[in-house]
Amino acid sequence: MDWQGPPEVSMGVWERPFVVTRDGDTISGILWMPEEPAGAIPLVLMGHGGQSEKRNENGLGLARKFVRHHGIAVAAIDAIDHGERGPIRVTEDPAGHPAYIALWKRADTFDRMNADWAATLNALLASDRFDHERIGYWGLSMGTMLGLPFVASEPRIKSAVLGLCGYKGSSAVRGRFGERHHRDAPKITCPLLFMVQWDDERFDRDGAFELFGELAATDKRMHVHPGLHGALPPEGRDASREFLARNLLG
Amino acid sequence: MDWQGPPEVSMGVWERPFVVTRDGDTISGILWMPEEPAGAIPLVLMGHGGQSEKRNENGLGLARKFVRHHGIAVAAIDAIDHGERGPIRVTEDPAGHPAYIALWKRADTFDRMNADWAATLNALLASDRFDHERIGYWGLSMGTMLGLPFVASEPRIKSAVLGLCGYKGSSAVRGRFGERHHRDAPKITCPLLFMVQWDDERFDRDGAFELFGELAATDKRMHVHPGLHGALPPEGRDASREFLARNLLG
Repeated sequence: MDWQGPPEVSMGVWERPFVVTRDGDTISGILWMPEEPAGAIPLVLMGHGGQSEKRNENGLGLARKFVRHHGIAVAAIDAIDHGERGPIRVTEDPAGHPAYIALWKRADTFDRMNADWAATLNALLASDRFDHERIGYWGLSMGTMLGLPFVASEPRIKSAVLGLCGYKGSSAVRGRFGERHHRDAPKITCPLLFMVQWDDERFDRDGAFELFGELAATDKRMHVHPGLHGALPPEGRDASREFLARNLLG
Repeated sequence: MDWQGPPEVSMGVWERPFVVTRDGDTISGILWMPEEPAGAIPLVLMGHGGQSEKRNENGLGLARKFVRHHGIAVAAIDAIDHGERGPIRVTEDPAGHPAYIALWKRADTFDRMNADWAATLNALLASDRFDHERIGYWGLSMGTMLGLPFVASEPRIKSAVLGLCGYKGSSAVRGRFGERHHRDAPKITCPLLFMVQWDDERFDRDGAFELFGELAATDKRMHVHPGLHGALPPEGRDASREFLARNLLG
């Protein structure tokens, strides 16, 4: 793991970009930490949405709150072909960059992303900054499309926030997504919170409910709010943070 | 409104039974208050479940927490033919007491219960103990079957917790319930939280989702937990209390 440039500190939050290399691939990430961490602290891995990147506005705000309100570190990485890793530009256009469409047709996308996350987690845990028993995952929309297989494959994840994702709707029909999730959802047993937008125009709620039902965790709950895919209210975002904080600190 | 016996005070919570009479009918209730209220305080009206009564164990615990944690008063009344008002005994048997089955076949049940609640609220607000602008309603299962029409009819209710109820399942097919709720749900516009048990054996989740969708409030959310009808976890109960407290105190 190599740091990229000096850390920046703002309002008690220490932030520094890093890269991890794996099989010749460069995984670009950011770590947010308390300026003065209290020993080995919990760590949340944060997966961004489709056609976004690791330091998107919502993610940045969430990461800073994890640090400031709970003393929990957050690490985000660019997904394959996103951000510093490729051609997919940040856009609200659901139609999709050609590279984004191609991402869901490749057979190795999920396994590559799992390995990227695992390599990142290995690198982060090598530093002794973090409590290895208190690792969480937070990712909605593509953060669940790519994150659910990771959480299913990674026993070090002790609690997760997933959602804005399901088996029906215009964004659900991308390539190999459904097939993989039907297989992996029943492997997920950690305590989790699943978010649904009632009027989601990309993932129909019925398909989101179906995915929630398949998650094997017995300690799970679903919060549903009115509004379109991108309209998760602050209440939902806050509840997701407080849920993970409770599980990682409690 | 006539008090029944002296108040009892336990751990800072003042509790006293009362009756309100309306058209020759005696409505039996209980009021819980802080021992030393801070002026005119918010009030939550609490509707109990089917074949239960006003001072059931869960309701009592919830009422005491409203008082102790938030300084909010709670009033509960026995539903028609329940508790001190009639023959329906407290039971977990979903099959139903004959009087309970009959309750759902009578044409006037909802209007009677609305009038009972309105008379109770009038009597309570006559005392100057409460802030007339900060009245909430809390009721699940039969507390929604009977409470939803009341909330729809009562503009003084500023926020509500509803749920464990819907249009499908063995408990949803009782008499005139669905017809009335399809008409009244679109009249409910106050901020609300709706609770669903994923494995509810009395109200199928699909029918609960349908009811949630019909509620006209734009400021609404739904929390879904695994488990049977009676298995709402403490997390859900706490969230429902904190939701109402936020809306009535904020």
